[in-house]
This record gives sequence, C-alpha cells and structure tokens, in this order.
Amino acid sequence: MSTALATGLRQTLDELVRAHRPAAPVGRVPDSIPHLHSVDPTSFGIAVATVDGEVTSAGDADVPFSIQSISKVFSLSLALRHDPGQTLWQRVLREPSGTAFNSLVQLEAESGIPRNPFINAGALVVTDFLLEARGDACGEVLAFLRALSGSTAPAVDEAASAAELGSSSRNFALANFLADFGNLRRPVPEVVEHYVRHCSITMSCRDLARAGVFLADAGRGAPAVATPSAVLSAEDTRRVNSIMLTCGMYDAAGEFAYRVGLPGKSGVGGGILAVAPGRGAVCVWSPGLDAKGNSVAGSAALADLSSRIGWSIF
Amino acid sequence: MSTALATGLRQTLDELVRAHRPAAPVGRVPDSIPHLHSVDPTSFGIAVATVDGEVTSAGDADVPFSIQSISKVFSLSLALRHDPGQTLWQRVLREPSGTAFNSLVQLEAESGIPRNPFINAGALVVTDFLLEARGDACGEVLAFLRALSGSTAPAVDEAASAAELGSSSRNFALANFLADFGNLRRPVPEVVEHYVRHCSITMSCRDLARAGVFLADAGRGAPAVATPSAVLSAEDTRRVNSIMLTCGMYDAAGEFAYRVGLPGKSGVGGGILAVAPGRGAVCVWSPGLDAKGNSVAGSAALADLSSRIGWSIF
Amino acid sequence: MSTALATGLRQTLDELVRAHRPAAPVGRVPDSIPHLHSVDPTSFGIAVATVDGEVTSAGDADVPFSIQSISKVFSLSLALRHDPGQTLWQRVLREPSGTAFNSLVQLEAESGIPRNPFINAGALVVTDFLLEARGDACGEVLAFLRALSGSTAPAVDEAASAAELGSSSRNFALANFLADFGNLRRPVPEVVEHYVRHCSITMSCRDLARAGVFLADAGRGAPAVATPSAVLSAEDTRRVNSIMLTCGMYDAAGEFAYRVGLPGKSGVGGGILAVAPGRGAVCVWSPGLDAKGNSVAGSAALADLSSRIGWSIF
Amino acid sequence: MSTALATGLRQTLDELVRAHRPAAPVGRVPDSIPHLHSVDPTSFGIAVATVDGEVTSAGDADVPFSIQSISKVFSLSLALRHDPGQTLWQRVLREPSGTAFNSLVQLEAESGIPRNPFINAGALVVTDFLLEARGDACGEVLAFLRALSGSTAPAVDEAASAAELGSSSRNFALANFLADFGNLRRPVPEVVEHYVRHCSITMSCRDLARAGVFLADAGRGAPAVATPSAVLSAEDTRRVNSIMLTCGMYDAAGEFAYRVGLPGKSGVGGGILAVAPGRGAVCVWSPGLDAKGNSVAGSAALADLSSRIGWSIF
Repeated sequence: MSTALATGLRQTLDELVRAHRPAAPVGRVPDSIPHLHSVDPTSFGIAVATVDGEVTSAGDADVPFSIQSISKVFSLSLALRHDPGQTLWQRVLREPSGTAFNSLVQLEAESGIPRNPFINAGALVVTDFLLEARGDACGEVLAFLRALSGSTAPAVDEAASAAELGSSSRNFALANFLADFGNLRRPVPEVVEHYVRHCSITMSCRDLARAGVFLADAGRGAPAVATPSAVLSAEDTRRVNSIMLTCGMYDAAGEFAYRVGLPGKSGVGGGILAVAPGRGAVCVWSPGLDAKGNSVAGSAALADLSSRIGWSIF
Repeated sequence: MSTALATGLRQTLDELVRAHRPAAPVGRVPDSIPHLHSVDPTSFGIAVATVDGEVTSAGDADVPFSIQSISKVFSLSLALRHDPGQTLWQRVLREPSGTAFNSLVQLEAESGIPRNPFINAGALVVTDFLLEARGDACGEVLAFLRALSGSTAPAVDEAASAAELGSSSRNFALANFLADFGNLRRPVPEVVEHYVRHCSITMSCRDLARAGVFLADAGRGAPAVATPSAVLSAEDTRRVNSIMLTCGMYDAAGEFAYRVGLPGKSGVGGGILAVAPGRGAVCVWSPGLDAKGNSVAGSAALADLSSRIGWSIF
Repeated sequence: MSTALATGLRQTLDELVRAHRPAAPVGRVPDSIPHLHSVDPTSFGIAVATVDGEVTSAGDADVPFSIQSISKVFSLSLALRHDPGQTLWQRVLREPSGTAFNSLVQLEAESGIPRNPFINAGALVVTDFLLEARGDACGEVLAFLRALSGSTAPAVDEAASAAELGSSSRNFALANFLADFGNLRRPVPEVVEHYVRHCSITMSCRDLARAGVFLADAGRGAPAVATPSAVLSAEDTRRVNSIMLTCGMYDAAGEFAYRVGLPGKSGVGGGILAVAPGRGAVCVWSPGLDAKGNSVAGSAALADLSSRIGWSIF
Repeated sequence: MSTALATGLRQTLDELVRAHRPAAPVGRVPDSIPHLHSVDPTSFGIAVATVDGEVTSAGDADVPFSIQSISKVFSLSLALRHDPGQTLWQRVLREPSGTAFNSLVQLEAESGIPRNPFINAGALVVTDFLLEARGDACGEVLAFLRALSGSTAPAVDEAASAAELGSSSRNFALANFLADFGNLRRPVPEVVEHYVRHCSITMSCRDLARAGVFLADAGRGAPAVATPSAVLSAEDTRRVNSIMLTCGMYDAAGEFAYRVGLPGKSGVGGGILAVAPGRGAVCVWSPGLDAKGNSVAGSAALADLSSRIGWSIF
C-alpha cells in the first residue's frame, strides 16, 4: 500500500469513527454474559490490515475486548491445519442453519451433526477435534492468535471465562447432546471449558485484523507476521471464507452479505472480523448489539467502508 | 475480451465438456416432473457471457431446456425493478432457510413470511407481487428474458407447464398457507399458474448466460443486448447476487459457495446460472441431479471453470 | 332412569346453568369464522341423554348452534361403520398431536399421515374416505346425525358454510399437502367443501346429546332413536372414545381429561360433546372460548357436572 | 374379592401367561441400557392387586426387574403429596407431547417447561422438586415404594444405576437445557443422579401392583399396606391417572388407551403398570419391547386381561 493510499485509508477510518460511534449506545449489551456490562458502551474501534502488511486504524482500535465467537474462525482454521485427511467434515456440515431454533431441531434430525462450525454445536465439535488432535484447544488457539497477530497481548480473561463457564448450561446441554450422538471424543466438561476459554480471549481490533489477514491472502501469512509459510492452504482458506459469508453473522448472514459484501464473523463482545479476498482484513468493535446479536455500529461502519473503498465481492 | 482470450476460453470450455459430460448420466432426473424424463441424459452445454458482450460456448449450449427455478432470479430482478419503495422486503426475508423441512416450520413460525425469494414460498410471493404490480407475471418474465438475451427463442413450454400444474399440490399448499397469513394479494390459482408457467420457460445456455450478464455488470445491460439503460440499480444487483450466493443452491449453498466461489442459481431442469461480478455470467446445463437437486456434472464443471480462470470471489 | 333420578338431574342442570352462564361472556368468539359473531354471547345450554333413552336439559338446550369440529366424531364413526377392512388407519394415526404447530411439522415428518382424525388434516382424510366409500360426505354425515338424534332439525347452515369456505385457505393448504403425499383420493376442492359443510351443520344440545349416546352404550343406538341395530361395534366405539379422550380437546386434552374425566370433543362454535361410558352423553354449549379454543363456561360446567354426579372414568 | 372371584382371576392370569409368554422374545431389549441384556428374554410375570387388598399373580410375578420409567408415577405422586400449593404445575405441563422429536422442539418453543411429568424432561423437574422439597429424591421414592408395597424388597440396583449414569448424556443434555431456562433448582449432576437412581429401582410385579393400588382407590392406601391415611387426595389421584392415560406409554398412548382402555405407565425394563379405577392395579413384565419402547407381550396381555374381565374405562 502506498503512503498516499494509507493516508487516504486513515482519513476514511477517522470519518467512520466520527460517523458511526454515535450509534454505538443504540444497541444492547447481552444480559447473558455479565462481564460484558463493564465495557464502555460508546467504545468504537476499527483497524484494516492489508495483504501487503500495513495496518491502519482509528478510534479504540488498541483497546482489548472479548472476541467471543470470532475465535471460531481461528479454531476452525487451526483444526483444518491439523486435518490433512479432512475428517472434521464428517462431524460437522458446512451449510447455513437458518434460525437458532431450527438448528436445535436440525441437530436432532441429523443425528448430532451440526450444520456448520460457527453455530455453538459445531464450534464445540471443532474444539473437541483440537483437544484430540493437539491435546489442547484453548492454549493452541491463543498461541495461534499470538503468532498470527505478532503480538503477545492476546490473553484469556480468566475472570470472565470463569463467570461464563458458570452460566454455560446451554453449552453443556449441546455438548451432552453431541456426546449422546457419539460426536464428542473428549469429556463434556473439558470440551465446554476449552470452548468457553477460547471465546474469552481478549484482543484489540489491530491485533485481530492482523491475525485475520491470511484469510485475505490465500492462506499466506502476511509479511509482517511471524508465520513465513502458509497458514492454511488456498483451498481451505476459501472454505473458511465461504463459511464466514454464509454462516458468520448468526441469522443475519444474508443481510450482511448484501450490505457489506464480505465474509464476516461477529461475536457478542461487539467485534466483527471481515475479510476482503486479495485486499485485507478489517476488524471493527463496538459493544452495542442488534436483535440478532451483531454490533449495530460495527455493521453499519463495515457497510460504509466496503462501499467507500469498493471492497464488496458482489 | 481480446480474441486471444476468447480463443483460450473456448478451448477451456471444450475441455470442460470433454471432462464433465461423462458424469452427466450419474445424476438422477427428478420423478416429480414427468416431461424432464424425455431429455437426453447425456446432454451437456456451457456458455460464458462476459461484461464486454462476448459469448463463448461449447457442447449443447444452443439446446433449449427447462429453466425451472433459474427463473426465480429473473422474476426477483423484475420485481425489484418495479419496487422503488422496497415493499417486497416486507413480504419476504433474505436469509438462508436451512433445509426444506425447516422452511415449512419457518413459514409457520414467522407468520407466513418466507425466508428468501428463492424457496418456493418466496418465489410465489414474488410472482404475486408481479401480478399485482404489472397485471402479469409469466408474460413479463418471458418478455424480460427475451429482451435480456436479445433473442426471441425463450418460450413457455405449454405442454410441460400444463403437466406440471396438474402435479403442483405442494405449491398449491404453500400458496394457500401464504394466503392464510394474508401474504398473497391475487387468487391462489392465478399465482400458482403464473409461477409454474414462468418456471416452464425453455432457454439455451447461450441465451441464459446472456440474460444473466447484467448481474455481473452492476446492473447494466451488456452492450450486445437491447437494454441500453440499467436493468437494475447497482445496489439491487448486489442484493440479487448475495441472495444467490447464500440461498441459490437449495440446501447446498455452502458447498457451492466453497467449490465454485460464485453466486449461483440452479433449477431441477439441470441448469445452473452463475455470476462472476465484474467478469461475466456462466450457464451450464446437464440434466442429472444430485441428492440436493443440483446438476451433478454442471456443479463439477463450474468448480473446474472457476478454478481454471480464477473467478472465485473468495 | 327413574323419575326421581330424572328430577334430580334436571335440578342439577338448572343449577349448572345458573352457576356457569355468567362466565359465558368471559371467553372470546373466534375472529376466523365471521358468522359466529352473530350469536348471543350469553347463550348457555346443556343436555344429558342417558343410555336408557331419557334426555334431560336446561338453558338454551334447544337452540341450534354450529357444531363445527364436533362433526368430526360423527364423520369418523360413519367412516368406521363403512370400513370393515380397517383401511382408514393406514391413512391416519391415532395418537395425540401435541400443539398445532407440531402437527404441521409432523405431517411433513411422517409423510402426510395425520396424527389423528380430529386434527384438521386427519378430518380431511376422513372426509375424503367417506367421499370415496359413499360418494358423499356432508350429506351422509347429516343423514347420520338426523337418524341418531331422531330429529330432522339438524341442517347445514348454507350461508355460514359458504362464508367459511371463502376463508378456508388453511384447510386448502392442508388438503393440498395431503394430496402431495398421495393421501387424498378425491379432488381437493370437493374434499374441502364437504369438510366445511359438515362442520357447518347446526344442532341443539338436546339433539347432539341424543346423537352421541351410542358412544356411551357400546355402539348400540339408544332405544328412543331410530337405529335398532348397532351404530358401531363395541370395539370401534371404544376406539372413538379413546381418541376423544386423548385428542378431542385440541391442546387441552390432558387438562380436560383431568378436570372432566370423560372423553370429549369441542368445536369452535362453543359446543362440547362428552361421553360417559355406560351412562350417557352430555352436550353443553356456550360460545365464548378460552385460549385453546374450548368453551370457557362449557368446560367448567362439564367439570362441575362430572364431579356432582360422579361420572369421571378416573 | 370373593374366593371364587380370586380363583377365577388366578386362572385367567395363568392363561395369560401361557398365551403371551411365547411372544416375549419377539420384542427387542434396548441397546441403550446394557444391564438389561442380562435378563432372561422369556421372562413374563403378571400381578393384580384389587382395592380390597387381594393380590393375585402368575408367571414370574415375584422376580424383581428394573422399573425404569414406571418410577415416574411414584415420583410424581410423591411430589404432589408434598405440593399443597400446586407449584409443580407452574414448572411442568400436563399435555401429551407427540413424538420425542417434537418434545425437544417443544422444550425450546415453550421456554423450558416440559409437556408432562412422564417425558424425561418433566421427570427431571419432578426429581428436582423432590430434592428441593424433601432434601432427597431417590431415597424418598424408594421409601414410598416400600411403604406402598408393604415390602422391603424394592431396592436400587447400584451397579445398573452406575452404568446407566455413565451413559446418560441425553439426560444431562435435557437437565442442562432446563437449567438454562431456570427450571432447575438443584445442580444438574445431583438431579440426574437421583433421577437415574430412582429409575434403577428393582421390584417384582407383585410389589408394583400392590404399590399402585392407591391409584385405583381414589388415593386411599389399600387395607393391606401400611399407609392408613390417604396416599393422595382423590383429585390428585385422578390427575395422575389422567396423565397416565394421555402420556404414559411414550408415543403409543392413543393405541394403549384403545386396546387396554386403562391408564398405564411403561418402562424400558419391560414392565407396565395399569390402573383400573375402582377395581385395582395390574403390573405385567416381559423384557422384549416394541418399536415405541413398550413391552410387546405385556401390552398384549393387558389388552387381553382388560377385555376378559371388562375393566376398560371406555
């Protein structure tokens, strides 16, 4: 990216912060995860990491936040890295799930095979896969995020993780269903704990954008990060991107695909990671969520950014 | 497209025909639609229409076939053309539906608002919209297809349409459900008949690719066709493309998005229309279907093509 | 029944009218069926027909009302009468359906075989069976009710029937689904029309109680009515009674079984027919319905009656 | 019961053993519960306890077997005994659930309130209620069964219970769902363990029939057992019986109601307890199950018995 271009992008991001931060408090912070309530509702950060290794940011882009479900992108990528035989796809599908309600019916109807790796049931299977393949899941995801972002800042928020584990009845229920169908190899408590812990990792927009840039670069680690060889094969990278596009935004995948035109994955911590193939990765963060669980100001800012710089894939 | 490029593409398409036609008879022709059984199961055609107005084809690209659900792309586009107030989106959603099974539950659970315009319930609402807005649906879709393709060949297969109407209990059921929820303005028999008729239009790969190229060109009619002004706004075009990507391939949208990396819409007649934004439209046809209702050889050929010429959006 | 007993029963019924009529207007008259709105909401009638041929009544027991779904008891009995080979049970099950919501899912999941003959889908199959076996359904049901009640008063309310047919989209939807699964032999419009018409029959409590008494008498026609031989075999009679108990009160079968302790069938016209095996049949009518579609004052009066005269089967 | 009557009943039961024992091996013993496989598949016992205190039996009526879900009748009765304020009914409904499949959807759709106390989710809530109200569930149920049967033979099969607890993923899943909806007061592991343990109680047909006779006697303890005062109010007894009739035989409640005509509760151990109000209780046992989980020979024998001695309530 030329200096002129970088300067233009910085101006654009600054404008996005000014334009979209006011909408941040409109959304709601979910009641289900107590520790998210201590976050400043007016927080708004955005960072863009391009495939040439540049990172541009604005607003609260260096403030760490709880990545929550965004971790599923990385646990999936890590599992694929360690799955040369493509065995994971016998245990989880790759299709949109429709509503959360339907996904429960689906789990029952399809004998314990989750619809995709981004619904909770599917992410629990991915976590179980890592535990079996690597002997660890949360630790591996954390190390992966640190290596990808070239930063030691990513860390598990232990207090938040412990609190969340105490209110994870739904995840324990899903994990026990999976176990009942024989689709879990490790003990339920171990799987749920590792899952909750890697969702409780905190990172800044800057580090997350940097960590995600390999998805924009056919699986190659960007020059600036400490992973010289390919993070993921080009094929698996396309796989992750297409799953993000069709399944990454809960029950608003279609809406996000249209408005932003990029593969994206959101978390209830208010973060969204979006990937522009061939260009770069964007991470935006603002805690207030819409009814479907996606950041209100974050979604709007990404739509705005994609439109301004012409990154939509459609 | 330079002559050299066109020659290269023609060679590629010829190779695709040789490589994928043998797989054509592997798939099954659906029992539900009798007249499809009279089609030669070894048929295989492919055509590419680029945004610069060139059309390249191979195999049975000039043989007309029943476009079936591919007509939904054009009925939707036509409805959006005549919906400046965006009222259609109050009557149909834009999210993936998961399985056919779930979509019925969904229709009930969400009070008669179909998940998207490409499932049958949603396409019936679109047809109803056209009937109310234009006084006609099938005739309008046919005229639209003729104008877009610059050909008078597209026609309704009246015998096939009559036969299909006689075995349309499921569509009558859906239409009555929609009517029960107040989401149909015109009488059920009229809506179902127009729907069945525009699905019974026959076209060749060449004409369908030509008709779809505006979706690759931000809504502009390609120079070679007789629609000088924009067919659709750039925004509505992105909308149609994103719905194709997330909902266009029945319950295999995720798989197609990954393998082909392009928005696509299939029909049980064995055709698939795919769109490469900024590049062009591809239409492939081969009658044998896989378990999810998509052309076996057609899907494989599109994956191969996309990979060879680098058109994947991911 | 001795004169003293009859006098006692009359007093009890009079007391029930006084006690429960005030609650009549509490319930709601359904919006879905317009002509029901012209009925006096304070109407309340009750009649008891015992197996010895006596009929005792109080309140508006001689006022005809729309029997609606109560007709399903008689269409089923009539079908069983003409089904020596028990073929009907290959086309409809005999199990409770859970909620209306589930019953739609069920129809899909179990390939068009309705859960029981009292949900609308099941009653449409019964109507279709009668049409095929007898060449007529509504006419046969009406003649059956007249013979059983020994009265020529039962009649189809033609205006109401026509109005209801015009707003029967849900029933047309169900019938088309059944047809799609091959579980309908006659044309959808004919089946729905006959179904709506036999639901539009009007009868008084007195005539309905009389018509139902064979269910309390092992299938024998009570002495006072013009059916000397058995109406139904003892076995089929128990079948009908057990289906009434488990499926007769929409999604309140369990509650009614407990409170009243008798097989019962309600209609949205506000009537309820209950059967006390070995004793007699009771019909109560009061138009206001509870949230589950059963007569508020009628249910309460039946619970009261059953408790006072010790007719609960539990 | 006169001596002549008792002699006649004994002969009838002997005939039932001869007639139905041969069908015992037809059914299947469920794979899900390993220890049931050690039981002799030709076992067949039957016992009738009448309200006058007599017990008549035949076949393997004194062989203890795993009562499994039959324990739900007693845990429910016990909970009602200790629930003067009827608070339990705010946490569990009393309606048939349709299929197991639907009941899971239902739990989700109705916010964690199980359809009835006999599906596993409902029985877990009842167990939780006992734990909170009495500080114990399994111990209380066992003491209740011993007092009702007047026998110290009923005991928890500790080895079987431990094995079953190890394969109770489905129950852990359900319990965690209930906890997620706030419908569990005690910790999930404690509730599931008590539930599995009271299902692992072993009893003979003789003792179970004796234990169930209060349900046939308006809640009164039969003279022969050590519970002089009422076990349950007449109203709560009717409640339990009506729930048994509508929900006691998994997805075959309607079929059982028709064929046997009595409230009944089956267990996957092959036992069935049936109640004839005003007459007595019957327990039959034979391990082979039909596709719906009910004893093949046991169901047939009960239908036969009910027909021979005229105990059907319909």
